[in-house]
Amino acid sequence: MTSLTAPIGVFDSGVGGLTVLKHLCQTFPAQSWIYLGDTARLPYGTKSGITIHAYTEENLTFLSQFNCQAFIIACNSASTQFPSDFHSGRPVFKVIKPGAIQALQETRNGKIGIIGTKATISSRVYENELHRLGFSGETFSQACPLFVPLVEEGLLHDAATDLIIDRYLRPMKEAGIDTLILGCTHYPLLYQALNRYFGPSVKLVSSEFQLSQSLAHSHCVQTEPHTPGHITLYTTDRVEFVKDIAERILLGITQTIEYRNISGPPLYEGSL
Amino acid sequence: MTSLTAPIGVFDSGVGGLTVLKHLCQTFPAQSWIYLGDTARLPYGTKSGITIHAYTEENLTFLSQFNCQAFIIACNSASTQFPSDFHSGRPVFKVIKPGAIQALQETRNGKIGIIGTKATISSRVYENELHRLGFSGETFSQACPLFVPLVEEGLLHDAATDLIIDRYLRPMKEAGIDTLILGCTHYPLLYQALNRYFGPSVKLVSSEFQLSQSLAHSHCVQTEPHTPGHITLYTTDRVEFVKDIAERILLGITQTIEYRNISGPPLYEGSL
Repeated sequence: MTSLTAPIGVFDSGVGGLTVLKHLCQTFPAQSWIYLGDTARLPYGTKSGITIHAYTEENLTFLSQFNCQAFIIACNSASTQFPSDFHSGRPVFKVIKPGAIQALQETRNGKIGIIGTKATISSRVYENELHRLGFSGETFSQACPLFVPLVEEGLLHDAATDLIIDRYLRPMKEAGIDTLILGCTHYPLLYQALNRYFGPSVKLVSSEFQLSQSLAHSHCVQTEPHTPGHITLYTTDRVEFVKDIAERILLGITQTIEYRNISGPPLYEGSL
Repeated sequence: MTSLTAPIGVFDSGVGGLTVLKHLCQTFPAQSWIYLGDTARLPYGTKSGITIHAYTEENLTFLSQFNCQAFIIACNSASTQFPSDFHSGRPVFKVIKPGAIQALQETRNGKIGIIGTKATISSRVYENELHRLGFSGETFSQACPLFVPLVEEGLLHDAATDLIIDRYLRPMKEAGIDTLILGCTHYPLLYQALNRYFGPSVKLVSSEFQLSQSLAHSHCVQTEPHTPGHITLYTTDRVEFVKDIAERILLGITQTIEYRNISGPPLYEGSL
């Protein structure tokens, strides 16, 4: 039987998944985590399904060496390309279903908007998941490839960002959505700009809360009082840059954090 | 001795280098080319020098299997991370020195602006090359990470693009530059927007012309009348997407073109 003190493995193409990890750390302070940010090959959302799937397999295989009791794919583009719920005999949690459940709980008028990378939007996974959950309303989806670079340039409150938001999202605003799924882990950083654009009547939905609920129900996570958990954060490139961002995003969690770079491609030939 | 009908190997992180290839094809219609676009790992310009160098080595090693008589690194970020002028015993041509030579020929007031990716700008290779060539004027440099995604979104003539141009380039405009080095192969696609912003008194400089000159002087290239050359265009991801763009960029060249995908990472395990 897996010890409940075993870590949970989490990966994202870069730093966006740290917004998910922070929520998980706050919800489960006794749990330990291994996080992998694949910064040498990001972004994923502009690449083909075959390539994203191959990267996802490699990342899960890397994480599986740490005897993780579960895995979390904290990247929407990667979640869309990994249909199975298991890897190496352990459960894999993804961010699509939790976001869809949350949207269903929020919508009143049955008009749900979905935004994400090109890979996420063209896969139509959110629409499929919503219908599988019994949704019979309307969906409006839009790929927003400029949102990630705008966030990475720090233009969170900027006239150019507001113009690009309007260019992408005017059709769904005019269609009268009341709920918007933020289908990329970078997008919560645009929360205020999107909130200004849509006004308070549109609920902005991401996956962290429902993901925590699923994890708690799975019994894969350390929920009993215990010593504080530990985070080992691996990157495939630019560990110092990731460390700067991670320290800001993860501020206030009780887990200790250790940073390690997997040096140089091919991905896992570096010294581990 | 290498036959003059041997191909020249060219690589870029993606499709930007096709703007360079087109000029070369038009200048040397009898020459054959092997082009590699590393679309599975693009962009390079946001990654570390160590990672860019490793990708560059892999790409040149891949190209060397085709008995190329020379190599061209048609990517500024990769050029900055490959100090040698040889690989596998063959000459390697890069895009930095040609751009610097062209800028020196254009400037009248000795104030040169340089724009590029974060990797290119932080390397200061253009400044170093200009000084090595005897330049004693002033340089003004600026990383413009949003330009590549804006080009890839097709926002070549757009109010948002104009706002971002102003945000990045106002200091060098106010400083009175008369020459601007476009230090990224995507940027010629913003030529008109940049020209509108700076006006006709600022010369916009890229590397294709001087690169062709260097190649012609090297005797590595087929300059005699001959049957038209051939292009084999390899990509590491999304060959159909690349084909669409390539057919538009390369319109009018006389070489025949063949497209091949190197399927799936690790990079060169696919069927060749």
